[in-house]
Amino acid sequence: MKRVKLIQIGEDIEADNRAEAARVRHLLAESSTYMLNLMSSPGAGKTSLILKTAEVLKPSLRIAVVEADMDSQIDAEKLLAAEVPAVQLRTGGFCHADAYMISKTLPELELDRTDLLILENVGNLICPAQTDTGAHMNVMILSVPEGDDKPLKYPLMFRRCDALVVNKTDYLQMGDFDMEELRRRVAHLNPDMQIFEVSCKTGRGLAEWSEWLLRKIGEDEARH
Amino acid sequence: MKRVKLIQIGEDIEADNRAEAARVRHLLAESSTYMLNLMSSPGAGKTSLILKTAEVLKPSLRIAVVEADMDSQIDAEKLLAAEVPAVQLRTGGFCHADAYMISKTLPELELDRTDLLILENVGNLICPAQTDTGAHMNVMILSVPEGDDKPLKYPLMFRRCDALVVNKTDYLQMGDFDMEELRRRVAHLNPDMQIFEVSCKTGRGLAEWSEWLLRKIGEDEARH
Repeated sequence: MKRVKLIQIGEDIEADNRAEAARVRHLLAESSTYMLNLMSSPGAGKTSLILKTAEVLKPSLRIAVVEADMDSQIDAEKLLAAEVPAVQLRTGGFCHADAYMISKTLPELELDRTDLLILENVGNLICPAQTDTGAHMNVMILSVPEGDDKPLKYPLMFRRCDALVVNKTDYLQMGDFDMEELRRRVAHLNPDMQIFEVSCKTGRGLAEWSEWLLRKIGEDEARH
Repeated sequence: MKRVKLIQIGEDIEADNRAEAARVRHLLAESSTYMLNLMSSPGAGKTSLILKTAEVLKPSLRIAVVEADMDSQIDAEKLLAAEVPAVQLRTGGFCHADAYMISKTLPELELDRTDLLILENVGNLICPAQTDTGAHMNVMILSVPEGDDKPLKYPLMFRRCDALVVNKTDYLQMGDFDMEELRRRVAHLNPDMQIFEVSCKTGRGLAEWSEWLLRKIGEDEARH
């Protein structure tokens, strides 16, 4: 009996994207550029965290940013206004950035003059978690007003990330966000996840987060 | 010359889903059930708004809820605890609910005893906007901590919805959310969009929103 010929679209696309992500990492290695993929819900504070991190790390690292959004270019404009090199990647209807989009973006950047490339992914806790962008590290932001139950609903995102930045801690006074409960829920999904309590508005926790990031980049690069 | 045989997956899936959505609406019509598709970012307050709306409208409408989430069932449990009939639809890895999922869910509901069926879609401002669930009305929530720039980044969601509930207005004191700027941005995308300023915590605006919803359901049903 002849075997059925199976065309499984999903797996093909994923395998192609993984191969492209490997090419992205190869390209980045040529210029010793480290890439961080930053993900969160809409409005959790990705652009603010990038601006604040760039401020702290400017003496140590040359930073550039890829701003991915379905539409608009206001985030890239904010970064350029703060003299952080940035390009805007418009995904059209697409709900996340993938390795192919990053490949198209890299030639627009001065990689030889970039130590750390930060991808600000599309605001979305679901689809970006399923896709390798070519980044060396994945980090997510959860903002306090979103609530402490998010690990229950978006487990893959919490599993896939190396670090969690809990932003807008200045909102803790407003609501019923239970930080210990959040930490328990995260530990259950991803015991190795680093957690930073931060407020981009008051500055709380930014030094600790930035120092960890700098150290982690150094360790990862020493290993390769 | 032979013509190329083109298999365009995306369009096929969309056409299939549209046909299924028409079947959902046909089924709902048999029991005179009106369906509302409620969408927002993670943590914007969908479950809270449903609970509060059910409280106000209980004397006028028999309400049931479909809770769509990638994982967990805590939202359905919250509704059942408040004696609102609810079922949990687990989408697995899927980032939004579609008409096929609703078709599978309808037999689990007592439609003959339901005037208003509310679908709480997966927390996501992108993918749910692209899919017809079979609902008669689409409503989105934007919570104040997310910021007033969201229409610039997620225009399709704002275009597709009949009403916008701006929730967590008790957070207005905290930040730099400009309600007039938001209204201008929304008007630019969707001049017919109804906007309600609400706080599920303080109760602000809930009566106005609920009354509008009740009136709109009556008008839509009179038309069909």
